[in-house]
Amino acid sequence: MLNFQFYNPARIIFGRGEENNVGKYTAEYGKKVLLHYGEGSIKKTGLYEKVISSLKKYNIEIIELGGVRPNPVLSLVRKGIEICKTESIDFILAVGGGSVIDSAKSIAVGSKINGDIWEYFMDKSKVIKSSLPLGVILTIPATGSESSTSSVITNEENLFKRSIKSTEYIPKFSILNPEITFTLPEYQIACGCSDILSHLMERYFTQVEHVDFTDRLLEAAMKTIIINAPIAVNEKNNYDIMAEIMWVGTLAHNGLLDTGRIGDWASHYIEHELSALYDLTHGAGLAIITPAWMKYVYKENQDKFIQFAHRVFNIDFAYNEKERTIIEMIKYLENWYKTIGLPTKLSEVGITSSNFEKMAEKCLVGRGKAGNFKKLDMEDICNIYNLAL
Amino acid sequence: MLNFQFYNPARIIFGRGEENNVGKYTAEYGKKVLLHYGEGSIKKTGLYEKVISSLKKYNIEIIELGGVRPNPVLSLVRKGIEICKTESIDFILAVGGGSVIDSAKSIAVGSKINGDIWEYFMDKSKVIKSSLPLGVILTIPATGSESSTSSVITNEENLFKRSIKSTEYIPKFSILNPEITFTLPEYQIACGCSDILSHLMERYFTQVEHVDFTDRLLEAAMKTIIINAPIAVNEKNNYDIMAEIMWVGTLAHNGLLDTGRIGDWASHYIEHELSALYDLTHGAGLAIITPAWMKYVYKENQDKFIQFAHRVFNIDFAYNEKERTIIEMIKYLENWYKTIGLPTKLSEVGITSSNFEKMAEKCLVGRGKAGNFKKLDMEDICNIYNLAL
Repeated sequence: MLNFQFYNPARIIFGRGEENNVGKYTAEYGKKVLLHYGEGSIKKTGLYEKVISSLKKYNIEIIELGGVRPNPVLSLVRKGIEICKTESIDFILAVGGGSVIDSAKSIAVGSKINGDIWEYFMDKSKVIKSSLPLGVILTIPATGSESSTSSVITNEENLFKRSIKSTEYIPKFSILNPEITFTLPEYQIACGCSDILSHLMERYFTQVEHVDFTDRLLEAAMKTIIINAPIAVNEKNNYDIMAEIMWVGTLAHNGLLDTGRIGDWASHYIEHELSALYDLTHGAGLAIITPAWMKYVYKENQDKFIQFAHRVFNIDFAYNEKERTIIEMIKYLENWYKTIGLPTKLSEVGITSSNFEKMAEKCLVGRGKAGNFKKLDMEDICNIYNLAL
Repeated sequence: MLNFQFYNPARIIFGRGEENNVGKYTAEYGKKVLLHYGEGSIKKTGLYEKVISSLKKYNIEIIELGGVRPNPVLSLVRKGIEICKTESIDFILAVGGGSVIDSAKSIAVGSKINGDIWEYFMDKSKVIKSSLPLGVILTIPATGSESSTSSVITNEENLFKRSIKSTEYIPKFSILNPEITFTLPEYQIACGCSDILSHLMERYFTQVEHVDFTDRLLEAAMKTIIINAPIAVNEKNNYDIMAEIMWVGTLAHNGLLDTGRIGDWASHYIEHELSALYDLTHGAGLAIITPAWMKYVYKENQDKFIQFAHRVFNIDFAYNEKERTIIEMIKYLENWYKTIGLPTKLSEVGITSSNFEKMAEKCLVGRGKAGNFKKLDMEDICNIYNLAL
């Protein structure tokens, strides 16, 4: 186990009806709020009305900025920063999924600096020192952004998709009511569950030894997603199932499961290039890339893959059948993605090999190599894209 | 799953050598520190010197208050409060195990009120509104007090052992270096592991349904303790083993594993009367009381006990052998306590039935009934003491 620090002061407010208390929680931090949201689904579901009503009850002044789309873009972040500065906003309330929250986080940081926010994405030596306080009402369990230290933004000018990290903008509160997810399309639930499972697998596949407790916590979380996701896409409005998924989604990415270990993250990086270029949903891209990554890297540490096959998928072939166990596990995983309605091949979403080299090259800009379980160069990444065809 | 709030802003600083940085972390919060510790073991191990040296490096003024003993007492808490008030202490540094930290927490609260601190223990309607900031160097993985909301104190005048709860005094930082535990006697490690396992079991045995994710997290933690404790008492100075135990100990009691559920806590309450009256080590008392509690209550929800037997102890008898599975699991648990050198019967520690009624009566003062899995009255508690003979 490696030395670590763990600090996550997000206040999680979980359960039925809690969105109606958002005004009370917001009033603890601010009086003039930037209400940040997506492309209007919160207006169709009635959530918008509830939020406005609760904020008004506490005499909170509201400036709105909607329009965040999946794979949130730099231009809207810049617009948000401009509004926060000119309107002297003192709190940002993000109502939406990971894209909205990520966009809000970058606005929160950008509002406190003089230079260009994008520099913090491309230059890791630049340290984030402060942020506007932020609150969240989560509408999609997926990215874990509701209590995470990261914000992922796409620069539309050059299609670079990059992230920043800081504890400064961890939300002061995040309201998680599983009922709010009832209106989500099955495909979005599936993509969210794929993203959550990926956050767990990225952390699980480490070369750091003596991390058995966090291994087991990760296995607990992965099993919960694997069992509940297929039910969630088939049984709409099942509170208990969505509650399990939603709480896993948050803990999967709040830093707890990173403690003492170094995750891999190559699948995320390789996928980011796909969703930046093709505007594919991140969770669907991960369903395609992850099995290919596994096929390419498993020989780097077979024990870890066998433990995963055994403990998470309950595959207990004869113990000398190491390779067969791993190959079988990858089939189980692919079948799980199919069960929840996700693609597992690039060809299924109409992506050909034409941009593989370009994407692999971009994936490595500012990084040297990608991933930690096996450090991948450009050729490796192209090989993984090819395995995913 | 029940609605819940989860908030734990403790900064965990985990790993080799971190105690040498305590001055740096302390300086973020205070200039004049009450250094609170136990009966002097930190002077024998050299930890005291390291702490003083690091604090002096940052020009921090130090007032010392040692002498905390297992089952920390109210009189020393009152003395600490007096010192904090007269010396204008602005930070408390607790160097020790759960007793020292619990004592420090009560001092931290008492320093901010005018009345008597004990009123907060006996009258749950009194709300803790502020606290001096607190830091910790943990020397014994056991109580989880290093990031928990509770403080347990014994009033020597009437031998009441009671607790307060608040997020106000959650430590600003807790330094956890497994190397610091290398000097602990095996018996203390065993008692610590018993306490940790009990914190997990108390939460596990709930009647709240649809808490599968937290069930699995608890199982992950319990398995880690069950596997590692027997190694820890046999292999002194094994960093990796103690690191697993230490991190489980903190997460077992930081609130995370309470989310969405209501724990039982009867075994803790029933044990508290034992350790208050006989000055038995809490972890040893739990090894005696817990199996007796299980035998007495398992019929209230056999499924939960079978899941525990199956997932935690890997007992997979034929599925219609429900009762046999549970009885066998309790034997496994008793054997585990024996393996780590703990008693499992009151007779082993020389306790007879003479005070059972008196203890049962005291256990219920201010509570009505004890526990939630099965709500226990005085007769039930006496029956459990008798089963533990």
